[in-house]
Amino acid sequence: MEGTGRGRTLDKVEPLIKDSDQSPMAAMKRIMQDQPDIVNMAIGEANFDPPAALVDIACRLLQDKVDRRSLYTPIRGLPQTRQAVARFLKRNFDADVDPEENILMTCGGTEALNLAITVLVRPGDKVLLPEPGWGPMMSLMERRGAVIEYYTLGLGDAWYVDPEAILAKMDPSVKILVVNSPSNPTGAMLTDRAAWKRIMEKAKEYDIFVFSDEVYHAYTYEGSYPSALKLDPSFENLLVINSFSKSFAVMGWRLGMVIAHPWLIRQMDVCKETVTACAPSIAQWAFAEYLDDGEEYLDRMRAMCQDNMDKMVARLNAMPGVKCPKAQGGFYLFPDFSAVEPSSAAMAERLLRNGVAVARGSAFGPHGEGCARLLFSAHWQNIAKALDRIEKAVTA
Amino acid sequence: MEGTGRGRTLDKVEPLIKDSDQSPMAAMKRIMQDQPDIVNMAIGEANFDPPAALVDIACRLLQDKVDRRSLYTPIRGLPQTRQAVARFLKRNFDADVDPEENILMTCGGTEALNLAITVLVRPGDKVLLPEPGWGPMMSLMERRGAVIEYYTLGLGDAWYVDPEAILAKMDPSVKILVVNSPSNPTGAMLTDRAAWKRIMEKAKEYDIFVFSDEVYHAYTYEGSYPSALKLDPSFENLLVINSFSKSFAVMGWRLGMVIAHPWLIRQMDVCKETVTACAPSIAQWAFAEYLDDGEEYLDRMRAMCQDNMDKMVARLNAMPGVKCPKAQGGFYLFPDFSAVEPSSAAMAERLLRNGVAVARGSAFGPHGEGCARLLFSAHWQNIAKALDRIEKAVTA
Repeated sequence: MEGTGRGRTLDKVEPLIKDSDQSPMAAMKRIMQDQPDIVNMAIGEANFDPPAALVDIACRLLQDKVDRRSLYTPIRGLPQTRQAVARFLKRNFDADVDPEENILMTCGGTEALNLAITVLVRPGDKVLLPEPGWGPMMSLMERRGAVIEYYTLGLGDAWYVDPEAILAKMDPSVKILVVNSPSNPTGAMLTDRAAWKRIMEKAKEYDIFVFSDEVYHAYTYEGSYPSALKLDPSFENLLVINSFSKSFAVMGWRLGMVIAHPWLIRQMDVCKETVTACAPSIAQWAFAEYLDDGEEYLDRMRAMCQDNMDKMVARLNAMPGVKCPKAQGGFYLFPDFSAVEPSSAAMAERLLRNGVAVARGSAFGPHGEGCARLLFSAHWQNIAKALDRIEKAVTA
Repeated sequence: MEGTGRGRTLDKVEPLIKDSDQSPMAAMKRIMQDQPDIVNMAIGEANFDPPAALVDIACRLLQDKVDRRSLYTPIRGLPQTRQAVARFLKRNFDADVDPEENILMTCGGTEALNLAITVLVRPGDKVLLPEPGWGPMMSLMERRGAVIEYYTLGLGDAWYVDPEAILAKMDPSVKILVVNSPSNPTGAMLTDRAAWKRIMEKAKEYDIFVFSDEVYHAYTYEGSYPSALKLDPSFENLLVINSFSKSFAVMGWRLGMVIAHPWLIRQMDVCKETVTACAPSIAQWAFAEYLDDGEEYLDRMRAMCQDNMDKMVARLNAMPGVKCPKAQGGFYLFPDFSAVEPSSAAMAERLLRNGVAVARGSAFGPHGEGCARLLFSAHWQNIAKALDRIEKAVTA
């Protein structure tokens, strides 16, 4: 224990995070600090402007001295915001959700997921997760002591959520099933409503609880979105995670939500008081007023993202040794660079040295090895610049 | 298990929160819903306007289309914000803190505390907490599986943090000591710098780690504030929790921080990615620009709060059966109503029926029974209205 520089007391503390000094993101950050001109495609954000009307409302509310908007809101969220969310879910998914009993506003989708895991997962519980899948989901489940089993996403001309792969792994020993459609990092979706229904039926049969992570619901490129909300209106086996931070390009505002059974909402409500207290107040007030007019913006941004994605797939597939499946939804492409460079860590470093930051595929599970996650929810001029650099890195 | 209305799958889940359906706050809320004219002294907030300059900066930054401020910030917080915090700590406490290595920005002081407990406390660890003390601190420690031992705050003409009570309980079996000065709910402070120093020395001797919760540091009414930051500049045995949400009356903005050893900051940084991702971006950008000019506002609000507190103590002590100690710091008085009504829950309900919401004293520990927590960080006209109603309730 000598030479850690932490002193005697901290040396006795077992590290919660084993490799916090050597995390790949930390390494990337160090390289990036010396290169101001990097195109950053590594961060999972909508890298374009939020709706101007939303920002105007937020500014007006900030200045309001009568109904002061900078105080705490109820832990569960402002009633007005939850009512606006319920109307949004009705318009978009024809879902009937009680704003008072079924909705909890959170500091982004991340806190929503964290609360759900805290309340529903116990050490030793068997959980089914998608692979490739979102790293923090795996870390959270690990830290909670869950026993993780993976189901593999399907791969054709696009990545897709394969219902047969899920159904094959569902049995009475499973406690939680996580479905992430559209998926981070692959853009895979579960598009087949009948298959979704079969999964929910089997969940009920075996007492499996389903987490449907729908934070990318507004960005889908193949038909209308089958939200799980329609499949279990009683919420006896379903919890849905959503986020307006992502949908409306205000990641920094931190506004997500859980939609779930009233009993679970009450559990998470009490728990949240000691995690972060309320979700940010200005974001809640602003969305309460703005959200009814939000669909036009989402349509416009979805079209832009789809256009970006189509052009990017064509460009990447034309590069020697690169295979790039389409995205059915979401913000990311997950091209395979293994013919160029088998190690996704080495490939990410090579791309970074050429001026493009990406997330290495192996961070998302073994099937991500050889791949990289590239963001397409950005302005085309940035993407085009990145593609030129990727081409240079690939052909070098 | 019949009749819970949760269905078979959720009936199998062991509740994390045992009494989430019957929480006292929930009961209070139901009573309050039917009474629009309640004066709310129950919520722990600075119930006055934030600095106008801070709000103006936030609005300008929200509208900025070049350097977009609604994207994610680094998990650890914006470098500019952490630099402004380090300058603030130098000016106010003459503390030398490295903005890059020692500071993590959080979603309020609550998340700061939650992260500290997640990273430092293990099931079975013995922790020393103040009593009366902040309820969520007790809940968080319980949920983490800590073995809680309390030290009792001293009571004279004011509540005070009694160093002898702390020192008497410090031995090698203790892992964590929590000091909350100024205290929620009592306003008690640890004013004796020499005693603070002895506590830190004993902490080093016995390998005890000290959490100093300083979120009310800007509101002190007896001399200059002895921050723990000066007592262990190596941070080998010290972690400090602070909050700008509280100090600058922007509770809803959710901006707090942890100041700690670089190794702990790295641990919490990685952990935070899966709890909430970054702290709210606009709050961070706005404070980075505003904070250097913040002291004039704090001086003004501190004077207002002290004036409120003095007048309120005089008024309450003149009521039959009410004993009200002064507050050395913070936002709260913790008067003893036991001669009027021995049960703090019954007293809170009686006050509520008379139009004043308060936090019942028993929520803060056994020594809080018979007491109520009253907020004085508000405009005097609201407090005066509440005092009239309290007088009516007491003399009825």
